[in-house]
Amino acid sequence: MRTSQFLISTLKEDPKEAAVESHRLMLRAGMIRQIASGVYTWLPTGMRVLSKVINIVREEMNKTGALEIAMPMVQPADLWKESGRYEKYGPELCRFKDRKQNEFCLGPTHEEVVTDIARREVKSARQLPLCLYQIQNKFRDEIRPRFGVMRGREFLMKDAYSFHTDKESLAKTYQDMYDAYSRVFTRMGLEFRPVEADTGSIGGNHSHEFQALAEAGEDTIAWSDGSNYAANIEMAEALAPEYDREPCADAYSEVATPGCHTVDEAAKALGVESEKVLKSLIVHGNKKEDGKHELVMICLRGNHELNEVKAIKIDGINDPLEMATEEEIAEFTGAHTGSLGPVGFKGRILVDRTADKMSNFACGANKTGFHLINVNWDRDVPNYEVFDLRNVEEGDKSPDGKGTLHLRKGIEVGQVFMLGTKYSEAMKCTVKDENGKDVPMIMGCYGIGVTRAIAAVIEQHHDDRGIIWPESIAPFKVAIIAIKPSKSQIVKDTAEQLYKQLLQAGVEVIYDDRDERPGVMFADMELMGIPHIVTIGEKSLNDGNIEYKLRKTGEKENIQASNALDIILSKLEK
Amino acid sequence: MRTSQFLISTLKEDPKEAAVESHRLMLRAGMIRQIASGVYTWLPTGMRVLSKVINIVREEMNKTGALEIAMPMVQPADLWKESGRYEKYGPELCRFKDRKQNEFCLGPTHEEVVTDIARREVKSARQLPLCLYQIQNKFRDEIRPRFGVMRGREFLMKDAYSFHTDKESLAKTYQDMYDAYSRVFTRMGLEFRPVEADTGSIGGNHSHEFQALAEAGEDTIAWSDGSNYAANIEMAEALAPEYDREPCADAYSEVATPGCHTVDEAAKALGVESEKVLKSLIVHGNKKEDGKHELVMICLRGNHELNEVKAIKIDGINDPLEMATEEEIAEFTGAHTGSLGPVGFKGRILVDRTADKMSNFACGANKTGFHLINVNWDRDVPNYEVFDLRNVEEGDKSPDGKGTLHLRKGIEVGQVFMLGTKYSEAMKCTVKDENGKDVPMIMGCYGIGVTRAIAAVIEQHHDDRGIIWPESIAPFKVAIIAIKPSKSQIVKDTAEQLYKQLLQAGVEVIYDDRDERPGVMFADMELMGIPHIVTIGEKSLNDGNIEYKLRKTGEKENIQASNALDIILSKLEK
Repeated sequence: MRTSQFLISTLKEDPKEAAVESHRLMLRAGMIRQIASGVYTWLPTGMRVLSKVINIVREEMNKTGALEIAMPMVQPADLWKESGRYEKYGPELCRFKDRKQNEFCLGPTHEEVVTDIARREVKSARQLPLCLYQIQNKFRDEIRPRFGVMRGREFLMKDAYSFHTDKESLAKTYQDMYDAYSRVFTRMGLEFRPVEADTGSIGGNHSHEFQALAEAGEDTIAWSDGSNYAANIEMAEALAPEYDREPCADAYSEVATPGCHTVDEAAKALGVESEKVLKSLIVHGNKKEDGKHELVMICLRGNHELNEVKAIKIDGINDPLEMATEEEIAEFTGAHTGSLGPVGFKGRILVDRTADKMSNFACGANKTGFHLINVNWDRDVPNYEVFDLRNVEEGDKSPDGKGTLHLRKGIEVGQVFMLGTKYSEAMKCTVKDENGKDVPMIMGCYGIGVTRAIAAVIEQHHDDRGIIWPESIAPFKVAIIAIKPSKSQIVKDTAEQLYKQLLQAGVEVIYDDRDERPGVMFADMELMGIPHIVTIGEKSLNDGNIEYKLRKTGEKENIQASNALDIILSKLEK
Repeated sequence: MRTSQFLISTLKEDPKEAAVESHRLMLRAGMIRQIASGVYTWLPTGMRVLSKVINIVREEMNKTGALEIAMPMVQPADLWKESGRYEKYGPELCRFKDRKQNEFCLGPTHEEVVTDIARREVKSARQLPLCLYQIQNKFRDEIRPRFGVMRGREFLMKDAYSFHTDKESLAKTYQDMYDAYSRVFTRMGLEFRPVEADTGSIGGNHSHEFQALAEAGEDTIAWSDGSNYAANIEMAEALAPEYDREPCADAYSEVATPGCHTVDEAAKALGVESEKVLKSLIVHGNKKEDGKHELVMICLRGNHELNEVKAIKIDGINDPLEMATEEEIAEFTGAHTGSLGPVGFKGRILVDRTADKMSNFACGANKTGFHLINVNWDRDVPNYEVFDLRNVEEGDKSPDGKGTLHLRKGIEVGQVFMLGTKYSEAMKCTVKDENGKDVPMIMGCYGIGVTRAIAAVIEQHHDDRGIIWPESIAPFKVAIIAIKPSKSQIVKDTAEQLYKQLLQAGVEVIYDDRDERPGVMFADMELMGIPHIVTIGEKSLNDGNIEYKLRKTGEKENIQASNALDIILSKLEK
């Protein structure tokens, strides 16, 4: 491709709206353009990368025996009502009516549609297992689209769904997908970790996320240095401390802590570490008959963070997790949110495992501006329940007992789920078992965020000059830059010849024939991340050389002009 | 692919909802399933065909130098307001609001989005010409979705858009696209005609449609047997007759024609041919100050049909064409719609060229239940305007003066437009001309109905047993049917071996290993349209043979089992 016949859309200036490197570089390199919040066009440079990733995903899916289909983006609400998700799914589900006032939505995911297909098309258990996939645009009306295509509203996803008669078959396909995902992300050049994950609104009972490691990630993963354990922090279990409580000291007493609203403020006022202060939060429990929620107290050690996913899994806690309002708290306890504590609390009390090991601790007095000190469980708080309720921290013991946990940020680029029968039961997607009885199919589902994964690659592969593409998904493998070809016939001839030779050899090459200043052309090719850059100028040609630069390492060398084709070919990945 | 690992979704019964062959066969062969009116899922069999067509389209687009991009399906209303189409486009444009109450629509076409890209990305006239394309789902909320994917609501389209500084450059790209479309449809095995076409709501001044010839088509095309002339009947000019009017006879007189509402009824009552009766219609002209429309009469020879596209091109006629209501007509003329005529009509009168040559004709008396006979233009109707207003008919003279016109039904599978500056002017998509002045880019746009084209192939290629795919887009090229492999080791071994050999040779082969009754398997493979079908049974194997059938012609032959691979390979298209 000649740049004169291509659309180079590089930007010289950093776009203000970009908060992360991948967003900045995708805009600057001319890969994407926003046309509405979270909605993007992929320009030719980006499209070439996207096409390569799509091909990798398709190849690896086909290798597993999954069958490609294409489901529509516009989905009838009726199917979503059958599964029960039409009401449950929040405003991320974009609902609208057609001209005949029938209800539709834009597919944010396709469990309903594919389950409908399976119940109509699968006539016999002999047709199972069956795994169907598509590579297709999704729409999720994110409340805060951000980071470019990393959290967009319309985005490209590969989603696959499998159907089985038994759990062993599901486990096999789950593993096949897990392996295929590992191959996909490896081929894309991603450093990633499969981690145990929550199943969220999709449902199911077993799930792994594929997390690309990157500081810009919105997820935190915990991994052990002593085993293969790795999990999303949402899922990582915080073990109960192995030590016992210290013995109770004096009876508790009240201390004035005027104006203290946070644990840190209270700790400072009381002259203790925040680890000695209990953090007490009040959340919504079940809805009562009067339409109000039960109020439930959650107690953590002062320097720990509540893990919401763990909390909502406890019976009697509202899903999604909602903090009680200041008004509700004032009415129920008579105190400000900064002065809460379990002593004398009238409702249910849930205590984190580590908080449970505290003794002689400080906590709010349920009286605005006052705290209690020397509080002890059992003695002062007779009724409470202990759960794992906090996020793990760097240095915690690994839940499998082997090694210590460390934390890293990750970008979720894929997720695999054992769904079970959530959708097949609701939608009566059944096959006959050996006794002739209709039983729901067991399902799995498997997604790759195709466009997001590309952003993740950039987060991992860039420098201050731009993107550094892995060859497997680079828009072009080789760039040829001709310096002032309009002024030098030999430069022009050499560049043209090398361009044609590379094309003939089947190499994807971009030939910058714009006759711009060399610095401009070079900056563009580096920004766009072309792995191999060849510069042809009269000066080095006079010595029989052309310049070669490997984008990844920045290494430069002179290569023989007369042998350039072979030398370049030898540098390409096989 | 083994059928046991594939999803065969053939139907034994004809689906009731299918009114055309392609719809019936796409359902029966398990290619598609409807999930809502005009919204379909492509099942694995259909998807394999769709993928092949997509590849053909992409290859031919890339050959022209067009650059692939991906624009979103969800489009901000603002862009459509800029072009003026947000209001003008009818309810086919699906409009909705996101969670923040911003207005959006689902893209039925992408002129606005691509023009926005060009005005942002093209900095210099040196970057032109530029041609961008995408292969992407569109949504058009058709009032009456029908014929399966032939007129669906969500459908796959290839749309391309080109930008130029001058008309010569546009003409070149237009021709490149025209040629590429011809190659695409030829490779798909379609019999098609490029015909002159109306530009409709897209706009522009020059357009060709690619019409696949098929009785199920919704378009009518007129072609000449004496030249290359071919046009959509919407566009085909009806020349003025070369004969003169006959001399006027007696003065006109009134005749009672009670209960006659149609031309044929009146002709019968009057004892004349319908060619001697004038057909008078009243349509909406411009809107008046009181919000009502002017009423305009259109007169045609009784046996001719109004051409609406021609009518709305006349100044002063409402676009879209609207017939006046019975109430409006009664108020304006005092008569029923079946008794209208130009004599004494108070409004503007438009007369078709052929009707203009009538003399001593009959027409409604503008008095319910009465007609006039012996009416003559000029003498009895002093003020009228003559236009080409009718559809051409079989036997009309070709508008280029060479040969006679014939009519055929066609399915529009592609259309190319010279758009001009309609969008670039409205959206200020400009480049600087040689004098440094901002001038709007000149645009073209080019569409292929990818999913519809597949239906068109089936309309042209089927028999009573099912689809007959051209090899280029068949879901599989070869089918192997093993007869009772569970009962014959030699059948099983031979089938397995041939299957593996064909796979190794890179042939797309489906191996029916379901161990069903031979008739069932054979019927499925014929229904699915596999071009080459090989049957392996013990009886012929004992003679060293296997059976081969060419789907297209139905020819059967025995081929040597020992040499089967080579023989089959020799039968495949190169």
